[in-house]
Amino acid sequence: MIRARKNPMNNENPPVDEIIEVLRKAPKVALFSHVSPDGDCIGSILAIGLALEKMGKEVFFYNPDPVPDNLRFLPAASRISQELPDSSQQTWMFVDCTDFQRVNLAASQISSESTVLNLDHHISNQFFGDLNWVDPQACACGELAVTLINKLGIEIERDMAINLYTAIVTDSGCFQYSNTTAQTHRLTAELLDTGFDLSRIHHNLYDQKPLAQLKLLQCALDSLEIYAEGQLAVMTLSLEDFQKSGAAQELSEGLVNHIRSLAGVEAAILLKEVGPQEIKGGLRSNLWLNVNEIAARFGGGGHQRAAGCTLRIPMVEAKQAITNAIEEALRLGRDH
Amino acid sequence: MIRARKNPMNNENPPVDEIIEVLRKAPKVALFSHVSPDGDCIGSILAIGLALEKMGKEVFFYNPDPVPDNLRFLPAASRISQELPDSSQQTWMFVDCTDFQRVNLAASQISSESTVLNLDHHISNQFFGDLNWVDPQACACGELAVTLINKLGIEIERDMAINLYTAIVTDSGCFQYSNTTAQTHRLTAELLDTGFDLSRIHHNLYDQKPLAQLKLLQCALDSLEIYAEGQLAVMTLSLEDFQKSGAAQELSEGLVNHIRSLAGVEAAILLKEVGPQEIKGGLRSNLWLNVNEIAARFGGGGHQRAAGCTLRIPMVEAKQAITNAIEEALRLGRDH
Repeated sequence: MIRARKNPMNNENPPVDEIIEVLRKAPKVALFSHVSPDGDCIGSILAIGLALEKMGKEVFFYNPDPVPDNLRFLPAASRISQELPDSSQQTWMFVDCTDFQRVNLAASQISSESTVLNLDHHISNQFFGDLNWVDPQACACGELAVTLINKLGIEIERDMAINLYTAIVTDSGCFQYSNTTAQTHRLTAELLDTGFDLSRIHHNLYDQKPLAQLKLLQCALDSLEIYAEGQLAVMTLSLEDFQKSGAAQELSEGLVNHIRSLAGVEAAILLKEVGPQEIKGGLRSNLWLNVNEIAARFGGGGHQRAAGCTLRIPMVEAKQAITNAIEEALRLGRDH
Repeated sequence: MIRARKNPMNNENPPVDEIIEVLRKAPKVALFSHVSPDGDCIGSILAIGLALEKMGKEVFFYNPDPVPDNLRFLPAASRISQELPDSSQQTWMFVDCTDFQRVNLAASQISSESTVLNLDHHISNQFFGDLNWVDPQACACGELAVTLINKLGIEIERDMAINLYTAIVTDSGCFQYSNTTAQTHRLTAELLDTGFDLSRIHHNLYDQKPLAQLKLLQCALDSLEIYAEGQLAVMTLSLEDFQKSGAAQELSEGLVNHIRSLAGVEAAILLKEVGPQEIKGGLRSNLWLNVNEIAARFGGGGHQRAAGCTLRIPMVEAKQAITNAIEEALRLGRDH
């Protein structure tokens, strides 16, 4: 059976009323969120689930991975299971997932009797559901979840609001990313009306830095070099740096922002040695440089302001190659 | 002449309509903001001034200090003067100032013929104006300025909105501080409706870090020590550190947050040598420790979660003394 009823029109006229109708009628609902879960997918399924429970439904929460430490404070987070629901679940709702693979599922694993609902804000969504509500204007699925719960006629209570606020805050970068809109702030105001301590949420989310990460930052800063009259900042991390700081590879994430935010910097690079002669480069730009193009030259890619690539050469050569490429692009300037 | 008509009742029933009335009638208005200006005081006076100009008034902007580099992008920022207005100005509006001293003025410098309007959100405001609109519930004067402009009947345009958004974002710590309310987000939504690129504002505000600050962070991280089973993190900066990084004293501001946000940390301290045997301590706590009490023991003070003190002893002794005091307080625990 082919599950997906692909309907690109859904993108403009999402079948919100039909989704509400399916949820109203369903006695049981299973909620799915993606691998390597984040605040948006976890917060959104928990809030929607709590709302459905207030309607008297039996709710099942699924994620293939454990809930990250800094999201365990979320109300009902302990109820998220890493076991798939049994086949008695007839309504499967996927949140923040572009396709089944994001949940480590194959389409064949979905019972043909179940109804698949797809709630997402990624422009790359594959419309894999029976009903697809995809809104790339939303900064987070949390925005769609607020609207969904309102339309279900359920009052948003404090526990739901904490989950929804976390979803929105994490995916909008504390309202700083350009995906943040007037609507983001209006919905957030509605959540804050329920009365919770937002500073405690921010503490739970962001003040959980491992000491090893700070030691890794220290190593990175020791390697800082500035090129192109201050427009390019470069840091490197060797295998030895990871070893002596006791940091896992993923703790290097975000370190590049410490140099991206230097005055006058247009491009920032963090090069890390992940194996012998295997260098991963993280490239960032601020206002105009297309780092996606530069990463592509080295077999990588990404977005205009954030991209990555892997080079199978020694660190010193990798640094030279990427630095040269960016220096040249900076010299050619933005009108090129 | 005693200028101030102190009226504590104003705090609950601010004379907003009277202020509107004075502004409507005034042909000229001078707007004042405080020394060491920040995004809130600069953004608020600029937005109010632009609104008053749309009403056909002559507007004068004053600040005793130059506009900081990262606020020069604000529309009309170049018009802020460091010269006092002449005596023909009859309506003087002070924004974000607890008293005249915040503008480096003595009450005697204010012409007795002028009307003084006082718009502020500090609970410590001295009600020094003829009319005082003081609202400590507002996270920023920018919130009051939005309401003021709306009440003046002026449509908030893009240039005003950029100023007001900056005022709110900077004083609410990007909506993360506990002073942020549902109303903060509602007013922000109204500003975003005018359509401006918020990511560029954030870049202008926050991506202007001097290289010397990063070098200073590097020195501070080199000194990091952890006590009390991970609950206390301590960094020190010597005069030599400032010298070799080329950083001015004020660039150490905020560095303590790098260790306050470590997982498990309740208290974080940055001790800096500002002169021979002169150590300034910045104390922060996360959830329960009253660092104000600890700073007070060393002749300092501040707030429960952020305080400071100065010790006139060598660094090694200062570190020992403060570390001991905090370790003891942590041992006694929150129920003490």
